[in-house]
Amino acid sequence: MPDYSNMNRKIKVGILGCTGAVGQKFISLLKDHPYFEISDIAASESSKGKIYSEHVNWKEAEAIPEDVAGMKIKSCNIEDLSSRILFSRILFSGLDSKVAGEIEEKMARAGFIVISNSRNHRMNEDVPLVIPEINSSHFDLIKKQKTRWDSDGFIVTNPNCSVIVLALALYPIHKKFGLKNVIVTTMQAISGAGYPGVSSMDILGNIIPHIPGEEEKIETEPLKIFGEFEQDKIKFADLKISAMCNRVPVYNGHTLAISFETEVKANKDEIIKSWNELKSFDTPFSPQKVIHYLENEFRPQPLLDLITENGMAVTTGNLRKCNILDWKFTALGHNTIRGAAGAAILNAEYLVKNNFI
Amino acid sequence: MPDYSNMNRKIKVGILGCTGAVGQKFISLLKDHPYFEISDIAASESSKGKIYSEHVNWKEAEAIPEDVAGMKIKSCNIEDLSSRILFSRILFSGLDSKVAGEIEEKMARAGFIVISNSRNHRMNEDVPLVIPEINSSHFDLIKKQKTRWDSDGFIVTNPNCSVIVLALALYPIHKKFGLKNVIVTTMQAISGAGYPGVSSMDILGNIIPHIPGEEEKIETEPLKIFGEFEQDKIKFADLKISAMCNRVPVYNGHTLAISFETEVKANKDEIIKSWNELKSFDTPFSPQKVIHYLENEFRPQPLLDLITENGMAVTTGNLRKCNILDWKFTALGHNTIRGAAGAAILNAEYLVKNNFI
Amino acid sequence: MPDYSNMNRKIKVGILGCTGAVGQKFISLLKDHPYFEISDIAASESSKGKIYSEHVNWKEAEAIPEDVAGMKIKSCNIEDLSSRILFSRILFSGLDSKVAGEIEEKMARAGFIVISNSRNHRMNEDVPLVIPEINSSHFDLIKKQKTRWDSDGFIVTNPNCSVIVLALALYPIHKKFGLKNVIVTTMQAISGAGYPGVSSMDILGNIIPHIPGEEEKIETEPLKIFGEFEQDKIKFADLKISAMCNRVPVYNGHTLAISFETEVKANKDEIIKSWNELKSFDTPFSPQKVIHYLENEFRPQPLLDLITENGMAVTTGNLRKCNILDWKFTALGHNTIRGAAGAAILNAEYLVKNNFI
Amino acid sequence: MPDYSNMNRKIKVGILGCTGAVGQKFISLLKDHPYFEISDIAASESSKGKIYSEHVNWKEAEAIPEDVAGMKIKSCNIEDLSSRILFSRILFSGLDSKVAGEIEEKMARAGFIVISNSRNHRMNEDVPLVIPEINSSHFDLIKKQKTRWDSDGFIVTNPNCSVIVLALALYPIHKKFGLKNVIVTTMQAISGAGYPGVSSMDILGNIIPHIPGEEEKIETEPLKIFGEFEQDKIKFADLKISAMCNRVPVYNGHTLAISFETEVKANKDEIIKSWNELKSFDTPFSPQKVIHYLENEFRPQPLLDLITENGMAVTTGNLRKCNILDWKFTALGHNTIRGAAGAAILNAEYLVKNNFI
Repeated sequence: MPDYSNMNRKIKVGILGCTGAVGQKFISLLKDHPYFEISDIAASESSKGKIYSEHVNWKEAEAIPEDVAGMKIKSCNIEDLSSRILFSRILFSGLDSKVAGEIEEKMARAGFIVISNSRNHRMNEDVPLVIPEINSSHFDLIKKQKTRWDSDGFIVTNPNCSVIVLALALYPIHKKFGLKNVIVTTMQAISGAGYPGVSSMDILGNIIPHIPGEEEKIETEPLKIFGEFEQDKIKFADLKISAMCNRVPVYNGHTLAISFETEVKANKDEIIKSWNELKSFDTPFSPQKVIHYLENEFRPQPLLDLITENGMAVTTGNLRKCNILDWKFTALGHNTIRGAAGAAILNAEYLVKNNFI
Repeated sequence: MPDYSNMNRKIKVGILGCTGAVGQKFISLLKDHPYFEISDIAASESSKGKIYSEHVNWKEAEAIPEDVAGMKIKSCNIEDLSSRILFSRILFSGLDSKVAGEIEEKMARAGFIVISNSRNHRMNEDVPLVIPEINSSHFDLIKKQKTRWDSDGFIVTNPNCSVIVLALALYPIHKKFGLKNVIVTTMQAISGAGYPGVSSMDILGNIIPHIPGEEEKIETEPLKIFGEFEQDKIKFADLKISAMCNRVPVYNGHTLAISFETEVKANKDEIIKSWNELKSFDTPFSPQKVIHYLENEFRPQPLLDLITENGMAVTTGNLRKCNILDWKFTALGHNTIRGAAGAAILNAEYLVKNNFI
Repeated sequence: MPDYSNMNRKIKVGILGCTGAVGQKFISLLKDHPYFEISDIAASESSKGKIYSEHVNWKEAEAIPEDVAGMKIKSCNIEDLSSRILFSRILFSGLDSKVAGEIEEKMARAGFIVISNSRNHRMNEDVPLVIPEINSSHFDLIKKQKTRWDSDGFIVTNPNCSVIVLALALYPIHKKFGLKNVIVTTMQAISGAGYPGVSSMDILGNIIPHIPGEEEKIETEPLKIFGEFEQDKIKFADLKISAMCNRVPVYNGHTLAISFETEVKANKDEIIKSWNELKSFDTPFSPQKVIHYLENEFRPQPLLDLITENGMAVTTGNLRKCNILDWKFTALGHNTIRGAAGAAILNAEYLVKNNFI
Repeated sequence: MPDYSNMNRKIKVGILGCTGAVGQKFISLLKDHPYFEISDIAASESSKGKIYSEHVNWKEAEAIPEDVAGMKIKSCNIEDLSSRILFSRILFSGLDSKVAGEIEEKMARAGFIVISNSRNHRMNEDVPLVIPEINSSHFDLIKKQKTRWDSDGFIVTNPNCSVIVLALALYPIHKKFGLKNVIVTTMQAISGAGYPGVSSMDILGNIIPHIPGEEEKIETEPLKIFGEFEQDKIKFADLKISAMCNRVPVYNGHTLAISFETEVKANKDEIIKSWNELKSFDTPFSPQKVIHYLENEFRPQPLLDLITENGMAVTTGNLRKCNILDWKFTALGHNTIRGAAGAAILNAEYLVKNNFI
């Protein structure tokens, strides 16, 4: 890998959906990134030509990075987003799923590397759905995908925000002891629904016990992520997950109450050890330690534990015996950092570091 | 039963722990009750002799009932609470569990009927732990208990607030199809912890994934409630429950995400039918329909469904297949009405109506 | 006045904007009303012909009244809303201000009595802007207005939700001691912005220090309400008001911090006495006592005091000297009951009782 | 001043009240401070001898700094806190005001420099009450104070959290145009009441319109801060302030709605210019720009603007004409950083940099 810390020229990247919640998070997190510099920002036709700082309804607590504030927004209109207009090699996509499918495909065909947080292509046979600490081997699907597009471009996706927290917390257990059954109840933050998203009249002092489409994603995406790469295909993992999803009046942070059953029985120390041993790797957004098990039984909590390792770690706690399955515990992750924009950036970093880009 | 609607003299009742959250709810709910009139209010030694309205930190939205506002508070000191001082036949106990055990026992020995919301005596062999729609037959333990105390007094208890919601939602299913396994995640309101209870700095925009002692109660109390009365003993039901309890920033209303497995397999309509058929009975606090199944998959919600039948009904919703156990759904109940003071009053009404008093 | 409590036929009323937040509140509050029965419900063209219970996103905690649940929604399209289609004599309008102006005028011309909560016609010279405890004499503008429309129809309006609370709290002081200057800071509930209204991402754990158009209304509407009816015109009152408006994470209830200066100096007892003496009148929605002064300096609070007199009273508290103006205090009112739908219903009741209808 | 950025030995400091909310904030903020290193931590007798990380109920989102985590807590018992036991030259005091008065005085007598956030000594004639951007000249009171104690020790205080925000926002206006009258309504965060502080049952979805003692502080402390140092005395400023204080369900950040009247009339640009010109100075905790005026009329907001300049700046917005006084606007500051621990640290930095220490 080139030494990007001293490199003269960073990789130019673009942000698709730059005015939305995920787009804003991309812009905020990529500030001063050692590998990447934002060269293009794009949104829907109605934003075209406007100065970013004057047009965006900025919702991040940190100010708009100065180099982006003055940029003109380009249109995500497929015709407009040709290589002639974009300077970027990599496009981070925070596009709404209503339009992400078509735009991302077009961009891949046109030779761009699309690092997407949208759900549209996640389950495609030749699209990697990757959490790099778990299944970086799936990036080898890229080769196959390039053939499909007949270009140097490709699409790489990260999972749903709840899935990332769940999969990271479960993977070390799955790998060592073989998961059979998982029942999870989620308590998901409002930021997961984007902006304006959830009406305050629906959630202030309230619980909404349903999030459309969410349970399906939680029950299927991990099977692909935990799957084995066999002969240029992913063989899905053979475990069963049942999810019950709730929206709660929390700003950031998805909290998961998880029960699980394993093939090989494990004791408490062995499970915690498996978490401690999950390997991270050496890129800017990678946490030093991926999973932090907290001994205090009142933890993890969004207010206290969300920003562990800048929001890129998952915290777990309160591991105890389950009367029905084997064990139960709480897991917490930052849904817009580890669960969305940060996940995509981590994927991009991995690809750069491992010469996919 | 005497016709209390026209009766000249109501039954005199006392409130133990009258300044606490549950005590206040008793006083609020008993206003204009057709069977009962409050004649005694008692609290800890430090409140003795004080005028209720001047001393209490009243937290109910309705004003203090006029007849109680001017009453003098008596001491719950056991010596003081002799029959000489109390005018009441029935004592509703909202005492803190630190002192409830001893005081309630003393009162029963002294001949009072103690209707308690405290946990101390719930699991005693000869103390009824009753939700009258489920196990009113357990009231026959009273006879045995009177022998123990050698008095006409006795103690009757209602379950923990989360247990009441869970047990009501599960009982019709258990009775018809035989429950084997239940996994439940609770999202519990702050009012369940009393006043001042949970610090705002711990819960505003946060989730606390642990409530001391709560999971144990949820995993054991239903086994007694669903138990069979056999030869003056309760034979505990043979099902397994696993609970994960969370405190959420909701004022009133415990929301439960429940998965369950039955002996006899049931379809969706049969389960809903079983809920619809749970019998209520004809007393002032009894809901007309005990369980309301809501078709809208975004329901039940605390903000919208909590006061169904004045807070005495349980609402359920979003019944759907579970990948691991058989079915999953959401249940909601009002923790301080159906789950506490209202539950105790319902027990007392049942006892009056069925000539136990 | 006819004796409506025993009357065989109630007055038929219609609800314009029946699917919105104010419309829902009208429907909820008018359940079993002794004077009125809902005969028509109307909304935008896209709702036309749909069954109410199947179409509305009902947000009230009480269920949809049975007689309305099955009704078909009519269109508020002006052509459709001719007298041929509507059975009602009175139309309660909870229309969005974008369309209220034109529709309400058309209906008045067509002979309907429009009782409106919308802001569009409030400041019109011949339209009464009335809080009946304050300025019922302004209803005499109706005569003049009928001439304008050349019909038996007319429009009557109630003030903005914050204005109602402010005006009720200030009027007794103004009448007795003559207000010169008023500075008010509002802390307004999210329900004041309708549904979906305020995004949860904007208000959870936050304060928004600006509500478009609100300060202007608070600074002008009271001048009309406190005005004298002179020769068929309202002579605006001569006081100055300065308002600073904030949105806060409270569901219902506008809290106002008010400082004021009077012509004639008053002491604390005299001010409280003036509040106690504000007259209510004898109709179903009229509070027995309009203003409740609470002695506890931590009151009034939305959680504890909002439903005083079913939400139709204003509560005040913490009256104390101001270093700059004369006195300062807190006032609280229920913004969707006393401040909106309930205010309109009270106006309609007054008109019925006083033979305007 | 010595060059502390390269200095071999930092100044040893101690934290009085190390387990409380302010004490925790001191410890959190002082991590890696270029001037100071924590050498002593002290709390009440009951904490004596315990390991900090095992004993404290840590409420900061950042982990306990490693060098403090393992420290033994000393007792704040006055006898124990003699110079023999403490290694520190400076003591940062986050003591509860119930005990702060006596302990701080004793420490000053014993020769320590006490930088206190407590209210006890703020209004003492010879104790500086300082916001260094405003009245660093008041530090000259130290000389007089040393005489009183007959030691090298002294006490320096920072104002109440709301006062700091108010005083910073008003001072540039006062200096240029002469303030006569100020009316302020505060909306104060729960963290201002410490931990456990405000019960969640009192504030979730609620407003509490009274904070004991707060209005008095806001109405008097600024008069000392804006005062002139004349012949070793502070001559209080001659302006009038009236405050109405409210607790709101916001975690951090006091929002103030302020109206003011000046001697010399100013236009909008002049006022904003005065804010822009308030000088900061060159120490680690000093913001680059003290007051940030935000053009967007929906700002400042706690969620978006609180951490401006790491929480050490004050943000203002929505400056507009007031109908009664001259102008009105919103101000926001971080109550536990700029308003408490950060304010004390800034005072200490100023003293070091200017050779008082």
